[in-house]
Amino acid sequence: MALIVQKIGGSSLADVARIRHAAERVVAEKERGNDVVVVVSAMGGQTDQLVAMAQELHDRPPGREMDQLLASGEQVTISLMAMALMQRQQHARSFSGGQVAVHTDGVSTRARITDIDRENLRAVLEAGGIPVVAGFQGIGPEGEVTTLGRGGSDTTAVALAAALEADECHIYTDVDGVYTTDPRIVPEARRLAKITFEEMIELASLGSKVLQIRAVEFAGKYSVPVRVRSTFDDGEGTLITVEEEDMEKALVSGIAHNEDEAKVTIIGVPDRPGIAHAVVGAVSRENVNVDMIIQNQGEHGKTDFTFTVPRSDYPLVMDTLDPVCKQIEAEALTGSDRIAKISMVGVGMRSHAGVADRMFEALSREGVNIQMIATSEIKVSVVVDQKYTELAVRALHEAFELDKPVDERDHIH
Amino acid sequence: MALIVQKIGGSSLADVARIRHAAERVVAEKERGNDVVVVVSAMGGQTDQLVAMAQELHDRPPGREMDQLLASGEQVTISLMAMALMQRQQHARSFSGGQVAVHTDGVSTRARITDIDRENLRAVLEAGGIPVVAGFQGIGPEGEVTTLGRGGSDTTAVALAAALEADECHIYTDVDGVYTTDPRIVPEARRLAKITFEEMIELASLGSKVLQIRAVEFAGKYSVPVRVRSTFDDGEGTLITVEEEDMEKALVSGIAHNEDEAKVTIIGVPDRPGIAHAVVGAVSRENVNVDMIIQNQGEHGKTDFTFTVPRSDYPLVMDTLDPVCKQIEAEALTGSDRIAKISMVGVGMRSHAGVADRMFEALSREGVNIQMIATSEIKVSVVVDQKYTELAVRALHEAFELDKPVDERDHIH
Repeated sequence: MALIVQKIGGSSLADVARIRHAAERVVAEKERGNDVVVVVSAMGGQTDQLVAMAQELHDRPPGREMDQLLASGEQVTISLMAMALMQRQQHARSFSGGQVAVHTDGVSTRARITDIDRENLRAVLEAGGIPVVAGFQGIGPEGEVTTLGRGGSDTTAVALAAALEADECHIYTDVDGVYTTDPRIVPEARRLAKITFEEMIELASLGSKVLQIRAVEFAGKYSVPVRVRSTFDDGEGTLITVEEEDMEKALVSGIAHNEDEAKVTIIGVPDRPGIAHAVVGAVSRENVNVDMIIQNQGEHGKTDFTFTVPRSDYPLVMDTLDPVCKQIEAEALTGSDRIAKISMVGVGMRSHAGVADRMFEALSREGVNIQMIATSEIKVSVVVDQKYTELAVRALHEAFELDKPVDERDHIH
Repeated sequence: MALIVQKIGGSSLADVARIRHAAERVVAEKERGNDVVVVVSAMGGQTDQLVAMAQELHDRPPGREMDQLLASGEQVTISLMAMALMQRQQHARSFSGGQVAVHTDGVSTRARITDIDRENLRAVLEAGGIPVVAGFQGIGPEGEVTTLGRGGSDTTAVALAAALEADECHIYTDVDGVYTTDPRIVPEARRLAKITFEEMIELASLGSKVLQIRAVEFAGKYSVPVRVRSTFDDGEGTLITVEEEDMEKALVSGIAHNEDEAKVTIIGVPDRPGIAHAVVGAVSRENVNVDMIIQNQGEHGKTDFTFTVPRSDYPLVMDTLDPVCKQIEAEALTGSDRIAKISMVGVGMRSHAGVADRMFEALSREGVNIQMIATSEIKVSVVVDQKYTELAVRALHEAFELDKPVDERDHIH
């Protein structure tokens, strides 16, 4: 008998019929002889509605009140899910974050889980019951309601699985697993049966929307096997797990694309120490996350400095840097919010060179100009004009034969 | 400087514009130099939606999960109201029932308030702030979320006013006070400037929908002056308070009507001890509240036994009593769910006889047949065929000159 944590996302709980359907999945797992802990998100669309109302009522809705507001969403779904399970003769019991308790560091709207009490959940499990836990929320050191930020329900599920030493954490969503790339762009994209935590972390941070990155980091840290599966079919989904010796190591596991960033370039900066700090420091002080950073030494002791930021922060960043550029005597401040970041990820890159070059060749063949490049041990990212997103993803998917099973691919793997 | 508890009902919080409007009323009270504690209901319509979902998911939604579910409604409005106040430069802070804490007896879906902690609210008030408290909910002895039942937000407001020794409790709603009768039936109905707790309790229990009866009982018990006023205008509303010596004592203060009951009659029961118990006991075991009860001794040692029950329980009661009637050898079981109860209420009845007779005379003049009569110190109720409701209310309103100020009335007062 295994212990499974099942996390059910908002789109799978958007109405009564879907809640009923999701409850049947829970009961099916239970009837296979396993213990189940259910973690739910708010009903699909609910959080957006609440946020919209808050923004109408306050220019910058205060964090504490946002937490209080948004936590109501899962309070609805835990009780509805518990009722749906009780109707099916299950002994279910709903728990808000505070009732578990899921302890957090108390930071409003982006709290981190610090500890989870096991007693209340264990008591229900030992009585043969199904605890239904509110994702996304916890209780801070002063007893205040705190939320974990968007997608935080995934993190709750993984953290609970770690705390209860569950055998697997199943993330039910509206896709049936992790794909080699976005199937809406490449219809030949293949579902991956397995992927490592590291690859999944890269894909998540690079724009794959399947799982929240903090959840995957948490899973990797505590070695909790996570299975992404669809609420709407019985497939095995994709298992995210530690790298195994006998795992088929694809050179490239997946291709991610991200159109949520903008590029900022400062041209002709006198090349002296402290420039990067002056620029990135000014941006960070506005609470903007800087992603890719590139500095090229140019001629005559001048340098160009380029980085990417979230697209929504682009106007703020340009305003912030205008006086900074004058101060550091840069020649010009330029940028674009019409860019896309295309990334290839695979643990196989560790042992094989040549991936980047093959990538550049494929893009060049299609006439796609590369604006920025960044690499790490298991990924290569390029920034291109946004109009090339689909073309670039399709060309790379084909060049690396991701539509074929790993052992049928032509190139080394 | 006074301390005012303002309770804002769901219809006054049904959307962002109304929340904003209600917040302005709160700020206006604050700017008059008073301290304010705000109590809110869930957004209008929200509770009904949640109940409907629960009933789709479970044949008899379990109480604990209903509490958990419904308490989410005020969690939304406390935070939205706090934001609206903060946007207006007020130091506001939202409190769920558990955060106050409002302690209850722990009975699911119809808990009673046992105690209220004052410290958290006092701290905000002393800092010049406005606590925004979730009505309708509290926390039970085991820390569980419990709700007070429909209309429970009124009770929360009055209980808070009592606990904090507030000067007045203002109940904001979509009517501008308590009327001599339902203005939809009698356009000449007058708003009452003042009414006693006792009269209000009778009116509430007799079908007036303005205030929840438990709230008025609570207010009377702790002598909390309650003012019912409209969210939509600046009127003084109606003050519900203790009976004052110099109050103008109307013979009749108001006329209530109730079409939510049904009448059950058991005909020809052998007149021996234990009959009333056999009948009422059987009905009570089905958790049905029996209201008016009348027993008439008939001929030949037989008696007729008549009582009223909530109309929604009528089919259940008839089914329940069928075997009971055979057992007690009654001649027939009959009844009607097309009745109306019309009641006249006034503290003046205490010192003046003749109200009942004048009432019967007015009804008789209009040809309205009286089916049942019940009286108490300050009220007379009659049951009539439901088709006479409007006719009876109008005839009585006119006969007792309720459209005129008390001192212009013809009859003794």
